[in-house]
Amino acid sequence: MDVELKEMLDDFESLKRALPDPSHQDSIIKLQRRAESLISLAQSSHARRSKVKDMSAEVIDSNPYSRLMALQRMGIVENYERIREFSVAIVGIGGVGSVAAEMLTRCGIGRLLLYDYDTVELANMNRLFFRPEQVGMTKTDAAVQTLSDINPDVVLESYTLNITTVKGFETFMESLRNKSFRPSTHNSGVDLVLSCVDNYEARMVVNQACNELSQTWMESGVSEDAVSGHIQLLIPGEAACFACAPPLVVASGVDERTLKREGVCAASLPTTMGVVAGLLVQNTLKFLLKFGQVSPYLGYNALKDYFPTMQMKPNPQCSNAACLERQKEYILAKPARDADAKAKEAEASNLTECPIHADNEWNISVIDDSEIERTDFPSSSDALPEGLVHELPSAVEFQKFPEPEEMSTSIDDLEDLRRQLDALNAN
Amino acid sequence: MDVELKEMLDDFESLKRALPDPSHQDSIIKLQRRAESLISLAQSSHARRSKVKDMSAEVIDSNPYSRLMALQRMGIVENYERIREFSVAIVGIGGVGSVAAEMLTRCGIGRLLLYDYDTVELANMNRLFFRPEQVGMTKTDAAVQTLSDINPDVVLESYTLNITTVKGFETFMESLRNKSFRPSTHNSGVDLVLSCVDNYEARMVVNQACNELSQTWMESGVSEDAVSGHIQLLIPGEAACFACAPPLVVASGVDERTLKREGVCAASLPTTMGVVAGLLVQNTLKFLLKFGQVSPYLGYNALKDYFPTMQMKPNPQCSNAACLERQKEYILAKPARDADAKAKEAEASNLTECPIHADNEWNISVIDDSEIERTDFPSSSDALPEGLVHELPSAVEFQKFPEPEEMSTSIDDLEDLRRQLDALNAN
Repeated sequence: MDVELKEMLDDFESLKRALPDPSHQDSIIKLQRRAESLISLAQSSHARRSKVKDMSAEVIDSNPYSRLMALQRMGIVENYERIREFSVAIVGIGGVGSVAAEMLTRCGIGRLLLYDYDTVELANMNRLFFRPEQVGMTKTDAAVQTLSDINPDVVLESYTLNITTVKGFETFMESLRNKSFRPSTHNSGVDLVLSCVDNYEARMVVNQACNELSQTWMESGVSEDAVSGHIQLLIPGEAACFACAPPLVVASGVDERTLKREGVCAASLPTTMGVVAGLLVQNTLKFLLKFGQVSPYLGYNALKDYFPTMQMKPNPQCSNAACLERQKEYILAKPARDADAKAKEAEASNLTECPIHADNEWNISVIDDSEIERTDFPSSSDALPEGLVHELPSAVEFQKFPEPEEMSTSIDDLEDLRRQLDALNAN
Repeated sequence: MDVELKEMLDDFESLKRALPDPSHQDSIIKLQRRAESLISLAQSSHARRSKVKDMSAEVIDSNPYSRLMALQRMGIVENYERIREFSVAIVGIGGVGSVAAEMLTRCGIGRLLLYDYDTVELANMNRLFFRPEQVGMTKTDAAVQTLSDINPDVVLESYTLNITTVKGFETFMESLRNKSFRPSTHNSGVDLVLSCVDNYEARMVVNQACNELSQTWMESGVSEDAVSGHIQLLIPGEAACFACAPPLVVASGVDERTLKREGVCAASLPTTMGVVAGLLVQNTLKFLLKFGQVSPYLGYNALKDYFPTMQMKPNPQCSNAACLERQKEYILAKPARDADAKAKEAEASNLTECPIHADNEWNISVIDDSEIERTDFPSSSDALPEGLVHELPSAVEFQKFPEPEEMSTSIDDLEDLRRQLDALNAN
């Protein structure tokens, strides 16, 4: 645009030279002034900060990374600048995905891959991120516009496609495999996939892709009544995949397209979606930068401010072939993992032998939190935490089930439930 | 601006008429084209949606409120449109306050009062909301710019002032007392005050104002290591005020100005601040629209995804005179409250006598959640929940205390603690 503006000002000058009559000169100068104020207006709305070569911890107002680099001085993160090496793929740039993308962009993530096929509508304005003037743009284009203005250091790749189509799935897989940003020995060119979609079908597609690529991913969802949500960590072979267990009620999410056809729509709130996006990206940062504990599953019940957690093992009878392959690999790698854990344990016990702060002037004591952990993460998948129930087949099918009264008590683990559902489907 | 643009185009037309020479005509037409494209560019970056008279539940893409009005159909909120009657004051438009303001704006709140005296810097870009092109603007101006574009239906009042100065406090009190938006019998013209400040002094000022006005408020804070935060509901006379109890560690927050002078700064993350803002506004919505349970205190430990809750009674020895007055009023009003509660109980028991859905085809059962509540909100202020500790005086003062070993066990309620602190201060 700059070249065009320069040409326009040149045109005004040559017109002035060609018309020496003072009355014409005045008109032209007046027009020129107006054009100049328009130009400055147009430019101010496109002012962008320049790229930053290295992340600095310097405490000055003009440093966009000072508050993040302070995480190192506070002892939270060992090496914050590593965030620039990571690639994160976000599938679904709606109420959760767009906010997750903005958070990662402001944190200075290396590369973001964005997938969506939808366009921005005024009906999306009750959630954060998109602005009314972006109505009609594709969500990916609007996101790239906003995110590149916020932080030009982030490499943005946008994919305006539907991953549930054959062609879309191919491009999705190809983009995840691309290792040009940071070549590694890993199967996939991204470090984490975040699923922020609003329907079951798309979740199953992300699950398939990640199982095939042995790609760790995090799933997120918000209920159609807008007052609960969840995030879940899925490590192929190690944790339950999306096909291993029937989705939980809070994980249901309703395809907005289906609902809209019926003249109704799911409710949504910027609060619930903001909280879920925040918890999702917080766990993403903990996973990538190796600090704190990454939650295997975290629910959010907004009515009671209740946050259930749990852990789910993979289902040995999972219907997904790629999941079974990953499970086999995980079992085969057990001896190596055990040896690794033993080595780390030995290293840790060496460290504890020499206290770092012998004087302890602040009277800080380390509290054994094994009890907290036990409460937070029941290690078996036997029981669901208080407040969660399985999303069973529809009520009609439920009625067909032999003994519904007995069922609610007899389901004491996911494998049992799986077998019962299989029997149900075989009818 | 529209008038000026119209005039500019008129000027081009009259210049064309005044210069019939074809070569001049061509130059002018070329200039006119460029000006027109500039105009459309400038306009597109300032396109605003028009105001909406009534909130509609109609499911069309152009309805900005369809997903919010759906909360009624989902049975979450009885009358969503009431949100237009409420005024919320937000003190501090930083990492938490700005996001809270955006959430309330997108929810269609009636009126927002915004208080801050700071300007936008690049160093704020690691948190949501402000954009690099707003650097140098006051936070209140930048917020009004962004929020009025997002939702022109919200009445925005911005106060660029420091509430901790004498003049600032006067204007603050005056603005809270203004009842022109919705005249009521209440002491204050706002329905809720949200404190989103980053220092102890400003919190004490909000506390003073709200105690004087008998104004319910919510406090929020994020720790300087960026990985924990909290929200707290303060009802003068009924719950502990900010002066009743020594602030908790998670409530500490460090004045960024003090830190900056020392060449260091507090760490911050868009995730933690987004989660805290989300929890704060979610509880604001529950409080205003009367659904779910409003949390008296909710903490967020990001490293462990742990969310402690508790309840704090007011301190009968509180150092704040206005708090003691409110406590007296609350005790005097007990008989009226008891009678009211009894009436409501009777009404409720009448309702339960006639089951609404006798057939219950979805097999929905109501679970007694009294146990959950007991776990979540210990009704006495005796003990802090796991993971929380009191922010005691500095370590040096702590050492002066007679028997520090005994102290950690003998403090079993806030009043005890208060007395011990008073004794300490008397030394």
